[in-house]
Amino acid sequence: MTKQVAVILAGCGVFDGSEIYETTLTLLRLDQLGIGYRCFAPDIEQYQVVNHLTQALEDGESRNVLKEAARLARGEISELGELQADDYDAVIVPGGFGVAKNLSDFARAGDNMQVLEALKDALAGFREDAKPIGLMCISPVLVPRLLGEGIAVTVGNDPGVSGAISAMGGLHRSCGVEDIVVDREHQVVTTPAYMLATRISEAATGIFKLVDRIDEMLT
Amino acid sequence: MTKQVAVILAGCGVFDGSEIYETTLTLLRLDQLGIGYRCFAPDIEQYQVVNHLTQALEDGESRNVLKEAARLARGEISELGELQADDYDAVIVPGGFGVAKNLSDFARAGDNMQVLEALKDALAGFREDAKPIGLMCISPVLVPRLLGEGIAVTVGNDPGVSGAISAMGGLHRSCGVEDIVVDREHQVVTTPAYMLATRISEAATGIFKLVDRIDEMLT
Repeated sequence: MTKQVAVILAGCGVFDGSEIYETTLTLLRLDQLGIGYRCFAPDIEQYQVVNHLTQALEDGESRNVLKEAARLARGEISELGELQADDYDAVIVPGGFGVAKNLSDFARAGDNMQVLEALKDALAGFREDAKPIGLMCISPVLVPRLLGEGIAVTVGNDPGVSGAISAMGGLHRSCGVEDIVVDREHQVVTTPAYMLATRISEAATGIFKLVDRIDEMLT
Repeated sequence: MTKQVAVILAGCGVFDGSEIYETTLTLLRLDQLGIGYRCFAPDIEQYQVVNHLTQALEDGESRNVLKEAARLARGEISELGELQADDYDAVIVPGGFGVAKNLSDFARAGDNMQVLEALKDALAGFREDAKPIGLMCISPVLVPRLLGEGIAVTVGNDPGVSGAISAMGGLHRSCGVEDIVVDREHQVVTTPAYMLATRISEAATGIFKLVDRIDEMLT
């Protein structure tokens, strides 16, 4: 049986959705390792639409997270509610501001953040069965409220985000862009990706390492 | 001096813009080889907005090619008119329907197609100085009207598109997804990418080969 990994998206674009390179590099590495994957995203409106040329808000424009995430999945995507943990061996959440705006409200609530209920529901089965969970870039900020307290993660070395993780009961570990942090007890693997990357090849090194480690955990 | 490559985009998404994986894989390989790059796109309205979940047209919605392409470039992009061939050693055009809808009208006009004047202007200097030009997926259909007749290219084995290329005076060569076609005389390198790819790793193999060959041509 081919291993199967679910990849959870939050739109399409670093400033209001999923980070495009992080997602593409994750899918590339999964496929290179012969691991099957399926993308999922919630069928909700984006919190914001950001002009990626100027980073200005597009007032009055709205976009749907699932439809925009479908761009990043070449149309091969399902609604997040359809994700059954029993069908997958592991799950990965790429980064991008969509994680802090659409999958949670971290961008506006900080350490008072709430995680999208549909995401909690989707991840519960993976957590219960101790299946590997990978998160990159800003996504590890979800961990305390999504998976529980006392889990070691990294977002690189950002004091604000790492402080919020600590305030919510998480354990933050500093980490270089080309490395990963593994919480073996909780089966959680994280890498800083574009929290630190200044070049796509740097992000690729850390992301490939994350996917490779998840592959090893499934062996 | 670090080699510099211009990458020309047509939006963000396979059905109405630039193919996301093809673009990301191109940038990844350039960066892995230590080659600098800059993305460019025209500041024009997209011909269409396509719902990537259903492939239905989004009637009444309009998006700007440069703004959407900026998603794919993490905001690091310039208007196509600013591209000066003198500043770059080579140019690459990833695929996606945006090439046939925004950079040209091939999707509606077939072999009566016209290429966007701004793209012709941008490429003229590369052509005159015999600098390497890479095109993938559907982009090679631009070649006869963009660069001239008698240039060998591939879009894989699609009879419709290859027939149109022939009808416009181009030379089409059949090619597998993991290979490239090189017209040494005209310095044009092409690969089928998602004209044939069924897996992202297949597209990556051909695209990496294309970028590697361009790198060799610059040595």
